[in-house]
Amino acid sequence: MQKCGPMETIRSLQNAAVRRIVSLRRSRKRRAAGVVLVDGPRESLRAIEAGLKLVAFYEIEPKPSDLSPKSEMPEQAVVRRQAIDSGVHRWVTPEVLRKIAYTASTDRCVAEFVAPDDSLDRLTAHPAWSEGLVLVLDQVEKPGNLGAVFRSADAAGVSAVLLSDCPSDRFNPNAIRGSLGAVFTVPSASGSESEIAGFLKAQGYRVAAMRVEGSRPLFESDLRGKLAVVLGSEADGLADRWAAECVEPVALPMAGHVDSLNVSVSAAIVAYEAMRQRS
Amino acid sequence: MQKCGPMETIRSLQNAAVRRIVSLRRSRKRRAAGVVLVDGPRESLRAIEAGLKLVAFYEIEPKPSDLSPKSEMPEQAVVRRQAIDSGVHRWVTPEVLRKIAYTASTDRCVAEFVAPDDSLDRLTAHPAWSEGLVLVLDQVEKPGNLGAVFRSADAAGVSAVLLSDCPSDRFNPNAIRGSLGAVFTVPSASGSESEIAGFLKAQGYRVAAMRVEGSRPLFESDLRGKLAVVLGSEADGLADRWAAECVEPVALPMAGHVDSLNVSVSAAIVAYEAMRQRS
Repeated sequence: MQKCGPMETIRSLQNAAVRRIVSLRRSRKRRAAGVVLVDGPRESLRAIEAGLKLVAFYEIEPKPSDLSPKSEMPEQAVVRRQAIDSGVHRWVTPEVLRKIAYTASTDRCVAEFVAPDDSLDRLTAHPAWSEGLVLVLDQVEKPGNLGAVFRSADAAGVSAVLLSDCPSDRFNPNAIRGSLGAVFTVPSASGSESEIAGFLKAQGYRVAAMRVEGSRPLFESDLRGKLAVVLGSEADGLADRWAAECVEPVALPMAGHVDSLNVSVSAAIVAYEAMRQRS
Repeated sequence: MQKCGPMETIRSLQNAAVRRIVSLRRSRKRRAAGVVLVDGPRESLRAIEAGLKLVAFYEIEPKPSDLSPKSEMPEQAVVRRQAIDSGVHRWVTPEVLRKIAYTASTDRCVAEFVAPDDSLDRLTAHPAWSEGLVLVLDQVEKPGNLGAVFRSADAAGVSAVLLSDCPSDRFNPNAIRGSLGAVFTVPSASGSESEIAGFLKAQGYRVAAMRVEGSRPLFESDLRGKLAVVLGSEADGLADRWAAECVEPVALPMAGHVDSLNVSVSAAIVAYEAMRQRS
């Protein structure tokens, strides 16, 4: 592509770039293409900071009277600068943005990135990898819950979040949004239960699984060193998965009437208790 | 009202009971009437267990072929028994339930209860009151967040959740749902910042406030004894509220890129750390 000054505003819904983004809104197409779509300026900046390659950035063209709109987040200007420098910045009409955005009513920009490699054998090469606490999410279905776990994991400084047979990926739009962009900052990989168990064994990790009953209370468990903690979805918990003899059962004490916590809440309690024990 | 056998199924959208519930869906009307509407069988049972007085219970009339529908939760039969025993059970048509339900597409029953007294001067008379950890939510706006905090608070066994200048109440339908019914099981009261601060002082409570910067880390804070911890909404935090000299600032360590946690996650981390210190 020739880089010779500002490109024209995209006005047509039939534009090839518009049709491409609309098509990539199907998660199967997005995964096959190996890209990530990001709908907020803050989340886009997190992706840039995490080293993802920006491929395209679409923003609503400001009116002449509106060059520094008060409602614009400062992150958006940073992403714009990066996009312009890379020659991948495009203004679009509000109608076009509504067509390509995930939440048509509120989004003001859409970014496309090259998806990072989420295979297990690349995890230890991640610049932010460290041999600390790893969280494993087993069969967690709701993308919003996935995202919320990444937000907790980022705050607590865990080494990685591994997705064990989860139907969504961490780049689902609701996962990105629920994480405030932490899906980009926390090292992650996906695999089956046996693939992840094999990886952890090869790395010399102990494995613990959060279970409701009949197990050692969290506060009596040693959460230091190379430890992975497996968490299930709130509805079914772990059932009979991650039940090998070498997997240590750990229970979160439940003092009241409700019998479960949201997985992002459980993850935060475990990760902060691990932070406390390690500090 | 005469109690002489099963009452007729309500079929008309113009029925007085139907119009009453529809009117009570406005939170101002509901609060003025001093009642609570509950939309799920599990949450209704929690309200009954917490001693709330059941005033009415509306369920979709089963078809003759469908007397024990597989999709029915066991809690619904328990609530039905209570409602029949109290003479406040009414079958309704699916159309009527859609009219009175909060989520027309999924709800199968609606219960009306007398609202408990949420004034501060009644709090210590609550049967579940104890002089342990109190959580204070300051200006938390989203009902779903309120509910999620009650769920965390119930699980961690806190003494009470106090609502300081929160625009919603704990009986907002989204709060009830997000709490899985824990809004009924955890002692609670509402008031202004100064009313709640006065109450805590009179009860001999220390007060700590979760702040982002410049304060003592959570894990170096003594969370035992008569302690209240104030949490703000995730967007604005506490700003300059709860800033009296006697209020101890406490910080949750943030190890990563995101700069805030959801208030229900922060509440859970604090409440479980308090549980650990007290055990």
